[in-house]
Amino acid sequence: MTLTLTPLKNIPLIRHGDNLADILLRALNETSLTLEDGDILVVTSKIVSKAEGRTVELAAVTPSERALELARQAEKDPRVVELMLSESAEVLRVRVGTIIVEHRLGFVCANAGIDHSNVDPDPSPNGYIWGGGSGEGSVLLLPLDPDASARVLREKIESATGKKIGVMLVDSHGRAWRVGTVGVCIGLSGIPGIVDERGWKDLFGRELRITIVGAADELAAAASLVMGQAAEKTPVVHARGFPYPLREGSLKELLRPKEQDLFR
Amino acid sequence: MTLTLTPLKNIPLIRHGDNLADILLRALNETSLTLEDGDILVVTSKIVSKAEGRTVELAAVTPSERALELARQAEKDPRVVELMLSESAEVLRVRVGTIIVEHRLGFVCANAGIDHSNVDPDPSPNGYIWGGGSGEGSVLLLPLDPDASARVLREKIESATGKKIGVMLVDSHGRAWRVGTVGVCIGLSGIPGIVDERGWKDLFGRELRITIVGAADELAAAASLVMGQAAEKTPVVHARGFPYPLREGSLKELLRPKEQDLFR
Repeated sequence: MTLTLTPLKNIPLIRHGDNLADILLRALNETSLTLEDGDILVVTSKIVSKAEGRTVELAAVTPSERALELARQAEKDPRVVELMLSESAEVLRVRVGTIIVEHRLGFVCANAGIDHSNVDPDPSPNGYIWGGGSGEGSVLLLPLDPDASARVLREKIESATGKKIGVMLVDSHGRAWRVGTVGVCIGLSGIPGIVDERGWKDLFGRELRITIVGAADELAAAASLVMGQAAEKTPVVHARGFPYPLREGSLKELLRPKEQDLFR
Repeated sequence: MTLTLTPLKNIPLIRHGDNLADILLRALNETSLTLEDGDILVVTSKIVSKAEGRTVELAAVTPSERALELARQAEKDPRVVELMLSESAEVLRVRVGTIIVEHRLGFVCANAGIDHSNVDPDPSPNGYIWGGGSGEGSVLLLPLDPDASARVLREKIESATGKKIGVMLVDSHGRAWRVGTVGVCIGLSGIPGIVDERGWKDLFGRELRITIVGAADELAAAASLVMGQAAEKTPVVHARGFPYPLREGSLKELLRPKEQDLFR
């Protein structure tokens, strides 16, 4: 089966309180796409964070002693480091420019997923809850509960369309030993996180030994490729042709238990 | 732009000495696809290894002392471990079932990318150079020089079709802190490994700070999702709509210099 990834057109700048489900339904329409059972909408976590009001004005942040010390080591803004600490369960590595943490959501990532880019630096006086900030004055935290955000979006869109779909939130992560960021799933609903093929047969009828496929992360990477990272204005991608059966999944499936983590 | 990933139909079992370019051209035809400039063919490294005769009969392997010791720790076949050592620059971690190495090709991976699955366990008497092996008697090593393999395939297909394309070899890798394998690029020609967006502007005209996109790995993950891991018999995927300009790339772009590796 062919897998098709299409960026949705005409998604406006998202503001706190926006109804993302309505915006996505409108954008599907403007992209001339009609949802079918099994379709998946892949959404950058940034616009979910914005809709949920996860922007933080840095002027309101007072860094702790620990944040000041880590900020010196990493050569980062101590207020941003303070937010990284509050968003993290544990600090794993500190290098200049990069603090690797275990995020409170359970995954390992750089800088707690806190984002400067595409946060409106010059907001209009009303609408933007982080209004009045300077160009470098605000940052965006990840959604509080990305699985729940995905579920709400899925349920609203399913009830509007009558179609069974999946919804996934993605972010871009670096890798320990490879160059470049790739899209990864940070929350999902209506699709599997992993597909456990242990017990399946290979081409020669022999049992596959160790294959658990990170299917949601593969789709996240595919959609991120289509989204691009800079000014492309395509924060949502429609995917058709996901090759595995849909079921309810969760981010947890994708996270190695600490004791099996090969990094720590 | 829409990204479309289509598995090629009717690719036969590949044997040592097979002309992969001819086989891919035939399969494109049988899939009713006509190549266009900018298309990319994503090929599982397995069939390249088979065509290049990278199958090793385990009966011919004598494990060293070091292989015997590591095999005890990892609970693996010492002959396979011997091959892992000969395919690796360095052993990084040993756990039951998994030996993490720096492969001689420069990337970090489990078990040196040595594969049991989809290696014909019951070959016909002629044709298969690993002929006569028992069901568990042979393994498949990665291609000697995957960038070169990709380049040769690209050049042959370009000269047969007159189209400028990219070719990528992929394998499935585990991740240090996430569950499930994802497709990664292990060799490429005619496409970029990474896309360096530093200096690009974000939506608000502000310079993006750290964005280097692992574009080849994102495409590898997308194609792997379509290939599946088990009996799907779809070792080649045609990709149309790769969103970055094509240029000559190399695996090296995707590999962190050791001193920047966050794993070691």
